[in-house]
Amino acid sequence: MNNFTFYSPTYFVFGRDEENNAGHYIKRFGGTKALIHYGSGSVVRSGLLQRVKDSLQKENIEFVELGGVKPNPRSSLVYEGIELCRKENVDFVLAVGGGSTIDSAKAIAAGVLYDGDFWDFYQGKPITKALPIGTVLTISAAGSEGSGDSVITKEEGMYKRGASGEAIRPTFSILNPALTETLPAYQTACGVTDIMAHLFERYFTNTKDVEVTDRLIEGLLITMIKEAKKAIANPDDYEARANIMWAGMMAHNNSCGVGREQDWASHNIEHELSATYDCAHGAGLAVVFPAWMKYTLNHDVMRFAQVATRVWGCNMDFSNPEKTALEGINAFEKFLKSIGMPTSFSELGAKAEDIEKMAHTACYGDGRTGTLGAFVNLNEKDVIEIYKLMI
Amino acid sequence: MNNFTFYSPTYFVFGRDEENNAGHYIKRFGGTKALIHYGSGSVVRSGLLQRVKDSLQKENIEFVELGGVKPNPRSSLVYEGIELCRKENVDFVLAVGGGSTIDSAKAIAAGVLYDGDFWDFYQGKPITKALPIGTVLTISAAGSEGSGDSVITKEEGMYKRGASGEAIRPTFSILNPALTETLPAYQTACGVTDIMAHLFERYFTNTKDVEVTDRLIEGLLITMIKEAKKAIANPDDYEARANIMWAGMMAHNNSCGVGREQDWASHNIEHELSATYDCAHGAGLAVVFPAWMKYTLNHDVMRFAQVATRVWGCNMDFSNPEKTALEGINAFEKFLKSIGMPTSFSELGAKAEDIEKMAHTACYGDGRTGTLGAFVNLNEKDVIEIYKLMI
Repeated sequence: MNNFTFYSPTYFVFGRDEENNAGHYIKRFGGTKALIHYGSGSVVRSGLLQRVKDSLQKENIEFVELGGVKPNPRSSLVYEGIELCRKENVDFVLAVGGGSTIDSAKAIAAGVLYDGDFWDFYQGKPITKALPIGTVLTISAAGSEGSGDSVITKEEGMYKRGASGEAIRPTFSILNPALTETLPAYQTACGVTDIMAHLFERYFTNTKDVEVTDRLIEGLLITMIKEAKKAIANPDDYEARANIMWAGMMAHNNSCGVGREQDWASHNIEHELSATYDCAHGAGLAVVFPAWMKYTLNHDVMRFAQVATRVWGCNMDFSNPEKTALEGINAFEKFLKSIGMPTSFSELGAKAEDIEKMAHTACYGDGRTGTLGAFVNLNEKDVIEIYKLMI
Repeated sequence: MNNFTFYSPTYFVFGRDEENNAGHYIKRFGGTKALIHYGSGSVVRSGLLQRVKDSLQKENIEFVELGGVKPNPRSSLVYEGIELCRKENVDFVLAVGGGSTIDSAKAIAAGVLYDGDFWDFYQGKPITKALPIGTVLTISAAGSEGSGDSVITKEEGMYKRGASGEAIRPTFSILNPALTETLPAYQTACGVTDIMAHLFERYFTNTKDVEVTDRLIEGLLITMIKEAKKAIANPDDYEARANIMWAGMMAHNNSCGVGREQDWASHNIEHELSATYDCAHGAGLAVVFPAWMKYTLNHDVMRFAQVATRVWGCNMDFSNPEKTALEGINAFEKFLKSIGMPTSFSELGAKAEDIEKMAHTACYGDGRTGTLGAFVNLNEKDVIEIYKLMI
């Protein structure tokens, strides 16, 4: 096991109706004037935004609002948010929404306290300070409610890039599974895929003897398979929503991924798809991950056979482990289809003629140095081949 | 799933040689003068204490020392520690040792800032403030390095009681698996048993639909079974020690136990054994837990069958689930024997004639109200029967 540090100081508040305590927690953690940051549509229509505002008013927390976060959140809105926070002397950023809104809130919270261009953080500069961030989560997916990560898309060039830092771990996160019951099945499935992708990015490693994190990841994957089917079949299944919501947080706060080299090539390969075609990140991952698995299978057949038997319930073929490994990948694809996810390029609206450009941007765009991933170190040619497997 | 809050703000530093950074982390988290609290013997002989002192000196952190913590740590030393901290204006408590030392340090840290008798906390008063605490862990067992719990024994009456509060979660914990390589096999096995007991106390619940935490707990149990055998067979197996150490933290920081009713009767039943006979807590648990399982089996046969199949690898007997459930308990007992743990009263030096007194103290002593546990609510008569099963 590799040496590591692990720090997850977020205060999680989990359960029905807890969004009505958003104001209480802002006050508890020292906020006096908040930016309420959100997307559009459902958060307003459902009355959630109003309930959150009421809770702030009850605690005499002043606030300003900035809506309009889109999936694959854009840098332009971040600049707007930074300016607004400075002008209004905001001391707390509250995200009401999913991963896109939370990631945008994180970028604003870091940018407010930084003299330079916030995009520097998305080109590798570590984030060391930020305004405190609270979240009211509306979809189980990105894990941003418990992570120190944020992904933003820069409109000039449509670069989609990530930034990290302990300072952007949320101070508190309110997780009410009931808020996810009204999600369309497609969005639920995209979230499930994203969570499973976060687990696979950690699972496929060259670090030896990491039994404890292997077993934790496998446990979370098994949970996702069972509970996703229940939530898709019955959107009001609070218990299924609750299991998925906690699994989504645990999948990405890194307690189950410590001490091991992680991969993350699939996320980078996907980011080009959602940046180019504006598809949902989870849907893109559903297309990318099986292709990545098939391409890297021979690097460590036994690891693929392990997940096939332990997670997908395949019988181990001891005379032909590769057969078992492939069965596991097939089971994953079948599962993705069963929850309504795309598994091919055309279903995403992606085009074969864009492959070379996307592979080049993934490997060299905006400061990258030519390779992706750690389980297998992929070059531009490899990435082209992986995209081709998706057609 | 029940509503819950989860807050684990401890900064974990994991890996070889990290004890040499103790001073760095005290400084980082605002300490200027520390109490170094420890047991005796091995911490001094191994040179660990000196390395820690050197690291404090390097960072110009002043310190005073208080050694002498015994297993089942005593209230008298806590009073001594509180007095010393006040006299010396200590602002940080650093525990160098295992669960007993950390628990004693927590009691001191809370007591220093409290006007009344610190024992109030161990009779149910929540701990709301404490000096910051750091730990350098020397045995994987209690999970106190990541928990908000502390257990202390009051010499008058030999009451062994627990206290809890977010304020006593360590500010930082240094986890170097190599420090556990010199432990005697018996102590390693006691620690393994304690970790597994923390998992079982959470696993046996009446809360329905808690798949995510079931699967996480099962994953940690499977890890313990595999890695314990390796660490006992080869004490220098750093990887096995590392897996056990992270599993021990995860078993008790409660990320895998949230949202469900937990039991804890077995811990209370055991505390009477270690308070009466001064046996190791883990050894006591090895005797108590299988007896508790046999006694409560019929309350929920399918839950016992689930752990038997998923963790112990038993084949499910669908025509007789109780048979499978019992096979799982037998597998647990066999495992405990294989790592050198006692499984009967006599091996602990416990005596049948003390049963009634222990059962009475467990149920009524020092403020208790007559029953223990939540999976099955046990009265004094039940506890007597469980003790009898251990003979």
